[in-house]
Amino acid sequence: MHSDLFLRACLRQPTPRTPVWMMRQAGRYLPAYRELRKKVDFLRLCTTPELASEATLQPVELLGVDAAIIFSDILVLPEAMGMELVIGDSGGGPRFPAPLRSEQDIGRLMQPDPMADLHFVMEALKITRRRLNGSVPLIGFSGSPWTLATYMIEGGRSTSFRFVKEILYNCPALAHKLLDKLANAVAVYLSAQIESGAQAVQIFDTWGGVLAPDDFRSFSLRYIEQVVAAIRAQGAPIIVFCRGCAHSTDLIAAAGCQVVGLDWTVDIGGARKLVGDRVALQGNLDPAILYSSPARIRGEVKSILEKFGKGAGHIFNLGHGIHPDTPVEHAREFVQAVQEESVRYH
Amino acid sequence: MHSDLFLRACLRQPTPRTPVWMMRQAGRYLPAYRELRKKVDFLRLCTTPELASEATLQPVELLGVDAAIIFSDILVLPEAMGMELVIGDSGGGPRFPAPLRSEQDIGRLMQPDPMADLHFVMEALKITRRRLNGSVPLIGFSGSPWTLATYMIEGGRSTSFRFVKEILYNCPALAHKLLDKLANAVAVYLSAQIESGAQAVQIFDTWGGVLAPDDFRSFSLRYIEQVVAAIRAQGAPIIVFCRGCAHSTDLIAAAGCQVVGLDWTVDIGGARKLVGDRVALQGNLDPAILYSSPARIRGEVKSILEKFGKGAGHIFNLGHGIHPDTPVEHAREFVQAVQEESVRYH
Repeated sequence: MHSDLFLRACLRQPTPRTPVWMMRQAGRYLPAYRELRKKVDFLRLCTTPELASEATLQPVELLGVDAAIIFSDILVLPEAMGMELVIGDSGGGPRFPAPLRSEQDIGRLMQPDPMADLHFVMEALKITRRRLNGSVPLIGFSGSPWTLATYMIEGGRSTSFRFVKEILYNCPALAHKLLDKLANAVAVYLSAQIESGAQAVQIFDTWGGVLAPDDFRSFSLRYIEQVVAAIRAQGAPIIVFCRGCAHSTDLIAAAGCQVVGLDWTVDIGGARKLVGDRVALQGNLDPAILYSSPARIRGEVKSILEKFGKGAGHIFNLGHGIHPDTPVEHAREFVQAVQEESVRYH
Repeated sequence: MHSDLFLRACLRQPTPRTPVWMMRQAGRYLPAYRELRKKVDFLRLCTTPELASEATLQPVELLGVDAAIIFSDILVLPEAMGMELVIGDSGGGPRFPAPLRSEQDIGRLMQPDPMADLHFVMEALKITRRRLNGSVPLIGFSGSPWTLATYMIEGGRSTSFRFVKEILYNCPALAHKLLDKLANAVAVYLSAQIESGAQAVQIFDTWGGVLAPDDFRSFSLRYIEQVVAAIRAQGAPIIVFCRGCAHSTDLIAAAGCQVVGLDWTVDIGGARKLVGDRVALQGNLDPAILYSSPARIRGEVKSILEKFGKGAGHIFNLGHGIHPDTPVEHAREFVQAVQEESVRYH
């Protein structure tokens, strides 16, 4: 059954082929998504359950991916904790005009009540589950505590991570206080998503890779483990994706999650040897390969399938979110190539 | 002898302490550099030997680093190959208004004659050697063929590397043609720098880490090896720094260079075990640690010294260029901490 593939692969159970979805699959590369965005801005799309659900379903209907991931943004959680979130006119993504810079700022953060403060996410999940009607599973998600902290302290995207690292290195106790608060918030948020219909959840640690390995373990992985421990009993498979953290693949695999996401700089065959049968692996095509030709895309898909090898426990994905300027036919070719070429490995 | 430390460490010969310098040490974090930049723009500073030499000497005089690195920019080489290079008004660094996008564009690139086309670099090296007068060694540098190719094809900084990857994946033969041309150009450029007074050279592969490991080997490391093979006989130690390429540390160590540079996401103790006595290691403090307190900076320096352990073959450096907004006293504390704390490891 099509609907089964993704969840079975998360648990390393046999499947007739490898399931596939794409990070950021509901997004700007899809003409249908761009149509939707003509009507409403990005935040409005996130906070309007009917529309968020529509965006979520687009890649399922148009590309035939094997899982849906709820359309949302990781920064709606800090907003629910009391931070003002705005979309700048000049692009550059959402940002916080009043970033956290002091103990007082951090003290003022509220523990969110997701069912109330993030009601729109829960509603979008419920509507989407109903609309999917068992065709493919629905994934919920959150940023990791560390990744959320970087945005909350920097105020937006950063390249130097000056302010968050200043707090981390100068006031580690304060950093731990914030990260613990965030771990609790992420746990209740993901827990509510599972209750509202998410059949698996992914924790995105987009910025774990900007830390030295020891700091990654102390300030990021430790709090991911705290989240995993808090929600694990609910039974939904948990995917942990830490970008640029190949130095700690074995430790991530021991964090209690069912699936480890890999970026494209990791050899998936080597990673499989390393983690053994502890976890399933998700990934890991360079999203830039979708700029190339259909033949080349298929070739690269085959190469990753060959590296992973035969047997269960692989969820095909990109190694990072799909680029907004990707030709949609190339995304379709990617999905089809996985669905066709993977049969021989099962 | 102070002047000896860096070159001896490159060759893994015993030294009384660990030498230290910083990538981008001649730069905006120094008030004296900002004074210099009030008079001339960035490109003018690069192309005026007297001023480039002045910028080169500033960190030696003000911070007491154990090596000088010539003040320049990696993009002067593509300019010498015929590409127009401009500094945008809105910041964002130098860029090429007419990037390479076709076989014709690539065919038009000229092999540079560094002694003529990059005379200003050679002159700056000669003046600086004279002024240094044996106090500390002088390092020359170039971008790697792959890293240069990314700027030449993208036209400037990129996050998706769309155009360069499109050529790489769709027209690999054309990509190889360009990279071969660039490897030849880099080799004659570094060779001329050594003839003009550079006592060691560093190859910066800033963007090697955006490639999957196999592609890194085919499109970046292979051409670094070509450069190394061409200049090795001249006897100046060669440092290869590939950012985000921990997956290939052992292969970089086998590239024929004397020193492998490490970014801060690598455990230097683990890297030393991996490379054994084949090469010296350079690195690898997170430059963001210089935002923290002097006490913390010293603590992190001690931690890296401890990880490397006793014995020869370590050149202390940051794991990436110093951030422009680093407090200058913190940079000074970093240099002093290495110079003081490392004695016990020798």
